[in-house]
Amino acid sequence: MTQLFNDPAAFADEALEGFVAAHRRWVRPVPGGVVRAAARVPGQVAVVVGGGSGHYPAFSGLVGQGLAHGAAVGNVFASPSARQVRQVAKAAEAGGGVLLTFGNYAGDVLHFGQAADQLRAEGVDVRVLPVTDDVSSASPEEAHKRRGVAGDLAVFKVAGAAAERGLPLDEVTRLAELANARTRSFGVALSGCTLPGADEPLFTVDPGRLALGLGIHGEPGMGERDVPSADETAELLVGTLLAELPPGVDGTAGQRAAVILNGLGAVKYEELFVVYRRVAELLGEAGVEIVDPEVGELVTSFDMAGVSLTLCWLTDELEPLWTAPADAPAYRKGSVAAPAAATPADDEPAAAAEQDALPAADDDSRRAARRVLAALAAVRATVDEHVDELGRIDAVAGDGDHGIGMRRGSHAAHEAAADAVARGAGAATTLDLAAAAWADRAGGTSGALWGVILGSIGSALGDTGRPTPEAVASGVAGAAAGVQRLGKAEVGDKTMVDALVPFADALGEAVATGAPLATAWDTAASAAEAAAAATAELLPRMGRARPHAEKSLGTPDAGAHSLALITRAVQRTLADKEVD
Amino acid sequence: MTQLFNDPAAFADEALEGFVAAHRRWVRPVPGGVVRAAARVPGQVAVVVGGGSGHYPAFSGLVGQGLAHGAAVGNVFASPSARQVRQVAKAAEAGGGVLLTFGNYAGDVLHFGQAADQLRAEGVDVRVLPVTDDVSSASPEEAHKRRGVAGDLAVFKVAGAAAERGLPLDEVTRLAELANARTRSFGVALSGCTLPGADEPLFTVDPGRLALGLGIHGEPGMGERDVPSADETAELLVGTLLAELPPGVDGTAGQRAAVILNGLGAVKYEELFVVYRRVAELLGEAGVEIVDPEVGELVTSFDMAGVSLTLCWLTDELEPLWTAPADAPAYRKGSVAAPAAATPADDEPAAAAEQDALPAADDDSRRAARRVLAALAAVRATVDEHVDELGRIDAVAGDGDHGIGMRRGSHAAHEAAADAVARGAGAATTLDLAAAAWADRAGGTSGALWGVILGSIGSALGDTGRPTPEAVASGVAGAAAGVQRLGKAEVGDKTMVDALVPFADALGEAVATGAPLATAWDTAASAAEAAAAATAELLPRMGRARPHAEKSLGTPDAGAHSLALITRAVQRTLADKEVD
Repeated sequence: MTQLFNDPAAFADEALEGFVAAHRRWVRPVPGGVVRAAARVPGQVAVVVGGGSGHYPAFSGLVGQGLAHGAAVGNVFASPSARQVRQVAKAAEAGGGVLLTFGNYAGDVLHFGQAADQLRAEGVDVRVLPVTDDVSSASPEEAHKRRGVAGDLAVFKVAGAAAERGLPLDEVTRLAELANARTRSFGVALSGCTLPGADEPLFTVDPGRLALGLGIHGEPGMGERDVPSADETAELLVGTLLAELPPGVDGTAGQRAAVILNGLGAVKYEELFVVYRRVAELLGEAGVEIVDPEVGELVTSFDMAGVSLTLCWLTDELEPLWTAPADAPAYRKGSVAAPAAATPADDEPAAAAEQDALPAADDDSRRAARRVLAALAAVRATVDEHVDELGRIDAVAGDGDHGIGMRRGSHAAHEAAADAVARGAGAATTLDLAAAAWADRAGGTSGALWGVILGSIGSALGDTGRPTPEAVASGVAGAAAGVQRLGKAEVGDKTMVDALVPFADALGEAVATGAPLATAWDTAASAAEAAAAATAELLPRMGRARPHAEKSLGTPDAGAHSLALITRAVQRTLADKEVD
Repeated sequence: MTQLFNDPAAFADEALEGFVAAHRRWVRPVPGGVVRAAARVPGQVAVVVGGGSGHYPAFSGLVGQGLAHGAAVGNVFASPSARQVRQVAKAAEAGGGVLLTFGNYAGDVLHFGQAADQLRAEGVDVRVLPVTDDVSSASPEEAHKRRGVAGDLAVFKVAGAAAERGLPLDEVTRLAELANARTRSFGVALSGCTLPGADEPLFTVDPGRLALGLGIHGEPGMGERDVPSADETAELLVGTLLAELPPGVDGTAGQRAAVILNGLGAVKYEELFVVYRRVAELLGEAGVEIVDPEVGELVTSFDMAGVSLTLCWLTDELEPLWTAPADAPAYRKGSVAAPAAATPADDEPAAAAEQDALPAADDDSRRAARRVLAALAAVRATVDEHVDELGRIDAVAGDGDHGIGMRRGSHAAHEAAADAVARGAGAATTLDLAAAAWADRAGGTSGALWGVILGSIGSALGDTGRPTPEAVASGVAGAAAGVQRLGKAEVGDKTMVDALVPFADALGEAVATGAPLATAWDTAASAAEAAAAATAELLPRMGRARPHAEKSLGTPDAGAHSLALITRAVQRTLADKEVD
């Protein structure tokens, strides 16, 4: 919901003031809205756009060279008045006439229409073009009654580029109309939005549901369904638009199209990219050539969660207008000199396989490697079992990614170990490869530290001979030292080290008494469990130097806790007589 | 919350694929992340950035000419691995060495550090710079332990521009370190975020509360307070940053600063502009010269609601690097030729006062104008009383702005009428000025239609003589005709016309029987009420041609309902003997 405002009644005016203050290079304020800061070019057609506030970058963010000459800025979700439109148009007009273009909503049609009448009475040549791209809002037979949504951008861009070329008003209008006739959008919504100062949402979508074709002010759409996957969303968007090709577009194979995947506000960039990945695939399969795609927030509705797809089916006339440079606050294109593409020599072979021949190993070490593999399978299983718990614990003081990272790491390590064992690797090599895989795939701090742990134990085991309990204990001691060095943490800092050091110490002591490895490991795992639990009781550290360590709320440290879980899981495989 | 994804475990990889597909002009994929699509410039320092996914445009969106040469892209909220960093650095490296720079988080420090060691072992000259701009995360004495947030952009931009100039690695590093040392950020949060596929939010902020300094992964901040106004938010942000000037910045007067007002995801553009308006004022009052401000989403955290302010205190060395051109997927600057500023001749006097001398009026008409003013006061009061109800009704089938628009319009009309009456205007002029004010300030469809209604009645009343009931009825009939013509609606379309036409008809009939105006108006108001109520029972129109009219859920049409409320309010002033 919209939460940051002063007087709600002043919201749109204050937003416009702030917008202008941040973008003086591009725009200057005039009564009713904004026009370009740059001097007017005598005789150039002025493209004047506009609409309600709450849709940024529509409409003020689209004023600049190669795009609009001015924008009339209405109140929140309300058309600008005819007087505003007239004032902006007069400030933008340079003797070449004015094209008024905007989304096709009743209020905008009225006010822009009245403004056109007034301007004509004052001797200004004016054309009016409401954009009608939203296929959800009327049937193809009544396409002229459709609402305008993100397709606004395609039409404005074509009009602005045509004006920039110095074309006369009739020609600018013809090209903009052609773009509008060949532009179609379809959108879906996951939530509504709350206007500044309102007590309740203007409209809503039930949680877990997807509204098809819901308008950007909550106007009725075409129905609802459960929230689909990102790929299914892409299929829905592309399927709907390919099912209604505009007149004059005969089939999709070889057709070129400008593509806009637009976020309405709260569907964020990475989600849009996941959806776009499939959109691009599907259009490619249909033979559509994508030209200068835009994936981002181009026409929003405050923090409404939703996404729309726009296709503007290009012609030889339209394409250069779509790809022409533009420089507006929220839309910049063709900046700097176009970079030279990377030369083939520069395109290195993708990740030359780093799989070298394995060091030689004997049967004893290969047998140990199989036990390592069994242990890593147990690690993976225990991490899977506790993944949510680890995330929750980590979220108390950290960033909550511990469970996810541990899962990625343990799976990758197990997979690499399985591959190594299949190729006849010894214990050291198996652990080395598992360590590298864990560190590489898990990311995060814990990934690096677990890489050190596995690698350190591996180095102590070697690739020949049956590993002794002393070698294992020595490897674990080395791991504890390595983690402290790399993580720059000591016992008491409320990190994995709090459990790892007691574990290594107990293991070393038990092995020194001559205990078998399984027994010694059992003792050490108990020490790790006790130490991990104790991290829950540590007082928060004073000061704010280590934000991940300062907030103790009765939960153990996630890293210490997962270490305890893992040592216990490994202990069970050591006790398991089946493995060997 | 993040809702559009496929397999959550594949989210970051799929997002990267989609990102690359949408931005082939700028980037190409390499194992571990992305590098510029452009050919490498031999000998140029490579600036390699990176971090977890979920923060777009950080980090992949910042790869391009004048900014980063490559980005290592980790999993969701997780550092890329050392191997990823190394792979990206090797693909970006062009013989001039590598600067690795990233936000100061433990995982990133580990992995970038390991990668640096590996690269050095391979003979590559490498420098490492963690960005430490977040003042909430450690004290000034331990500034080197602070987290990196939106200040990343300032540091990356300086480094990228310095590399583009061909400066050697030592110099690029020195300048980036200087930028980091002079950059401070402070952020506040209104909500947390939910990671793809997670059952619950990673972290939350209680509704109505503002978390001060909360980290972009939910790391602990400095406390909480109730949500402030936008201006208070600006004061909090600016006040905190001006309270800790970096070493070497002696006072703010005359200091030049790069300013970044960053939205975390769900605080949208207009809200940011409202906050920025006050930020710019406050910095101006402190004597700070703002250079190339950025207001938008530069470092996000999925749909976390929050905002941060970054100040990079410029020096003569840093400023040209901050303002230099850049061309990355999410950051473009200095595109096209800089526009000429508007000439003074082009800057028209702002809205030349449109207040002309008033037409002459006699005392009878001035008395009528006072009744008009009383009626408009009653209209304003009844609209204020019902404003939420009107919004709710409109939200059923329309965009929910009817109440807001009516309030703006009725207030503006009353104000204009009061001014006119004070200046001695007659009834027609008073209504004309009120009509223009309503249409101009209300915006939306209803604004235009109420402008027609008041204007039409005014024309019938004239500025001389006591208006007859017949003149009033004739003006109302003209209003009904004008609204039908302008709104292109007929009776039965479920619009204001459904109530206005019966009202006009009933008024005309009652006046024709010789009834006094107050009596006739009473009868007509009842007809309007009945007709407005009946709009609730109209069946939804078939087809999707008029989206605002199609959904009837037992509520009357908002426009018809407000007309009925207003005619009743006016009737009460006509019956009121006090007025005259």
